[in-house]
Amino acid sequence: VSIADLGRHLSERLGSGAVLDGADAAGRLVGWTVSQPLGAGLLVRPADTDGVATTLAACHAAGIGVVPLGGGTGLVDGVAATGDLVAISLERLRTIHEVDADDRVLIADAGVTLGAAQRAAAASGLEVGIDLGARDSAQLGGLVATNAGGNGVIRHGMTGDRVLGLEVVLADGTVIPGLRRIVKDNTGYDLSGLFVGSEGTLGVITKVALRCTPLPAGRLTALVAVVSFDAVVAILRDLQVRTAGAVAAFEVMWHSFYQAVAVESGQHRAPLPPDAPFYVLVEVETGTSDPGPEMLAHLLDDAMGAGHVLDAVVPHTAADREALWAIRDDIPALTEVLGGRFAYDISLPIGTMEAYLEELSRRLATRCGSRLVVFGHLGDGNLHLSIGGLQGSERPAIDDLVYAPLSELGGSISAEHGIGRSRSPHLHLSRSPEEIALMRTLKWALDPKGILNPGVIFG
Amino acid sequence: VSIADLGRHLSERLGSGAVLDGADAAGRLVGWTVSQPLGAGLLVRPADTDGVATTLAACHAAGIGVVPLGGGTGLVDGVAATGDLVAISLERLRTIHEVDADDRVLIADAGVTLGAAQRAAAASGLEVGIDLGARDSAQLGGLVATNAGGNGVIRHGMTGDRVLGLEVVLADGTVIPGLRRIVKDNTGYDLSGLFVGSEGTLGVITKVALRCTPLPAGRLTALVAVVSFDAVVAILRDLQVRTAGAVAAFEVMWHSFYQAVAVESGQHRAPLPPDAPFYVLVEVETGTSDPGPEMLAHLLDDAMGAGHVLDAVVPHTAADREALWAIRDDIPALTEVLGGRFAYDISLPIGTMEAYLEELSRRLATRCGSRLVVFGHLGDGNLHLSIGGLQGSERPAIDDLVYAPLSELGGSISAEHGIGRSRSPHLHLSRSPEEIALMRTLKWALDPKGILNPGVIFG
Repeated sequence: VSIADLGRHLSERLGSGAVLDGADAAGRLVGWTVSQPLGAGLLVRPADTDGVATTLAACHAAGIGVVPLGGGTGLVDGVAATGDLVAISLERLRTIHEVDADDRVLIADAGVTLGAAQRAAAASGLEVGIDLGARDSAQLGGLVATNAGGNGVIRHGMTGDRVLGLEVVLADGTVIPGLRRIVKDNTGYDLSGLFVGSEGTLGVITKVALRCTPLPAGRLTALVAVVSFDAVVAILRDLQVRTAGAVAAFEVMWHSFYQAVAVESGQHRAPLPPDAPFYVLVEVETGTSDPGPEMLAHLLDDAMGAGHVLDAVVPHTAADREALWAIRDDIPALTEVLGGRFAYDISLPIGTMEAYLEELSRRLATRCGSRLVVFGHLGDGNLHLSIGGLQGSERPAIDDLVYAPLSELGGSISAEHGIGRSRSPHLHLSRSPEEIALMRTLKWALDPKGILNPGVIFG
Repeated sequence: VSIADLGRHLSERLGSGAVLDGADAAGRLVGWTVSQPLGAGLLVRPADTDGVATTLAACHAAGIGVVPLGGGTGLVDGVAATGDLVAISLERLRTIHEVDADDRVLIADAGVTLGAAQRAAAASGLEVGIDLGARDSAQLGGLVATNAGGNGVIRHGMTGDRVLGLEVVLADGTVIPGLRRIVKDNTGYDLSGLFVGSEGTLGVITKVALRCTPLPAGRLTALVAVVSFDAVVAILRDLQVRTAGAVAAFEVMWHSFYQAVAVESGQHRAPLPPDAPFYVLVEVETGTSDPGPEMLAHLLDDAMGAGHVLDAVVPHTAADREALWAIRDDIPALTEVLGGRFAYDISLPIGTMEAYLEELSRRLATRCGSRLVVFGHLGDGNLHLSIGGLQGSERPAIDDLVYAPLSELGGSISAEHGIGRSRSPHLHLSRSPEEIALMRTLKWALDPKGILNPGVIFG
């Protein structure tokens, strides 16, 4: 069966508007964050789970590869498509089926954007516990398939930690009806968990049940200038205890980041002078709607007393709060200041971070013009590194500098972005041969013809 | 190869003290919560992961079944062993390898008891977030393999939610070194998650890395008498918001339970009169070490105003607090009052609970002498049902009464206890044929000879 035959077959089954090829397909496959333009042989847009199952069954029978498309905001080339592949987009599966405030669950189609899910949850006094910059493009199915991280991880865990159940279509078109709305269900294997972070290589997610939490009554935000790395760690520990675990963000900007974005970029008014080694953007959820800045002073009491805090600013208006987050989020400004950058998303034990970064700086110093900028979600052990001032041809060497020590430290080459195609050459640094062999066993058990997202994870 | 040959081979490899048979084995296989005495052909007690791998490799080669033994506190006949099987006990793997207060991780052998892990964590200012009555017998490996629930689920999730990584030995003796100490690691499939709740049918867990949380500074406990089910639900929702998610226990005792245990058993002094329809044992974690009862009054403000609360008592001493928990935990007294009981551990959406229980009562009322007693972890949708006054021969009919409606309600026949052998006949009520088929696919991919814990889950 050729791709053209397959297209005719699927048009008949799903309706002609659901199947695009040639320029029609190419026109819709723009804007994805991938290194090469997408060029699938067919772009199929089923309207429902049955349509996804029909598409997969047909591709499986024909032995034609399938690339599932979500919102296209991934960062690791997880959706590369070429002329011999079928791209299947979930964009038409966008119904929110249920939000239940008592059970605190949201059930929605995989193509629903995170932003739409957030708004639906909020209307019932809930939050989904997942948030990231691409919220209005990223789709729930893609977020689960890549186990997305984001701003809420310290409080709510990764996307996978929010999943109660999934409806998934397997490679051969079998629908696994694993949607569940209950927290406790010890009836055999965690099948839904198997698809979390599998990046479209084991099945196509069509519906998602997410565990939600009540919308917090209030929120306290502060930007705190801190005297040392140890002080940053101590403040986090102290805040977790003093708030009974209600720390909702603890975003650490190394001086290098604050200097580049808040000062050099010219895009922001620096809310604190740029002379501290660390700046922490802290958010704490509160049980009262208007906690007031004196609560923060109370929470930081010990840290102040111990001389850990150099300075702090508490926003008085929503706009002030936005301005603080705008610094943390302004990756475009950082890229501009650095004149392009190599970006890394690693995690490692907190106790090893300082020595790791010192050694990396030392090694980068031998490369003329290089500049290392660091920020991260410290509570999650997650650092985002940006390295500027280097040529594209230096990328493989820098990849090695960044990744090589992580294996021994018990770190990860990909904290939240996944493996996709771009990081598969380095997978062996985070996973042992035995683990990779077991992953392959699972892959072939579920997708014996290897049609699902070929090239992803395993290379 | 006979069992006797295998015993000789393993004695040579592991040392004779590690391999017991006949009366020596039987003598150690008592005290487990199983319906039949265990009678394994061999009891192997390896000293380390290599010993486990050696044992499994030998059993795999010989095609002899293996039953992994933890602390023996399971409730679903998950460890039945007979003369043609090898029981492998993790009891000698009991080293706590690491507790890290900054990364908030505990790494320990599978044979370490929950109690030992709790004490080691507490010494570093941490808690493991798992707690249950059998803490000093239950072992970490068994807790993970059965995805145990317990008292902390509302705050910290199930045991599986605490797992950062596992070292596991597969059926053929391959060691999967999946221990990880970082929260964020998006490098392929969640292999550790596959073994959570697999009840020893996919591999033998040898080491566990658990995500811990800081020990709370303080804790506020209260027993609250509540006017109606809707009021119970409203109080939970309100408390979650007012404490910014710090509710650590919300144990609901229906009048039937309170009456039986606090009054009829004669074992307790009833702290509140037994005339309310519901009693809730609430615990809230606090950021201060001595929160004081006025904080609870503040938290229950709205509930009082709305007329939801009939009465409440706050313990003044640790002994008072223990006395409240002793009522909730006194299952022996309940069993005594009921003169034996059929016990169920189900979960279902909160909105369906009242109607479900009403219908169940109505159906039980046709059976002379039957008595339904209910308590549960409401925040988790989990109810524990006890039915007294019936003959053992009525069990299958009562099982059907309890389980049959759950499928349609989106509930589970086993919220926290697992499937084992005793619930496998009812697995189809919680899992679709497609899900069970996929579980079997995974089972045969990882254990093609079917040697691991035969009969469990799949029957």
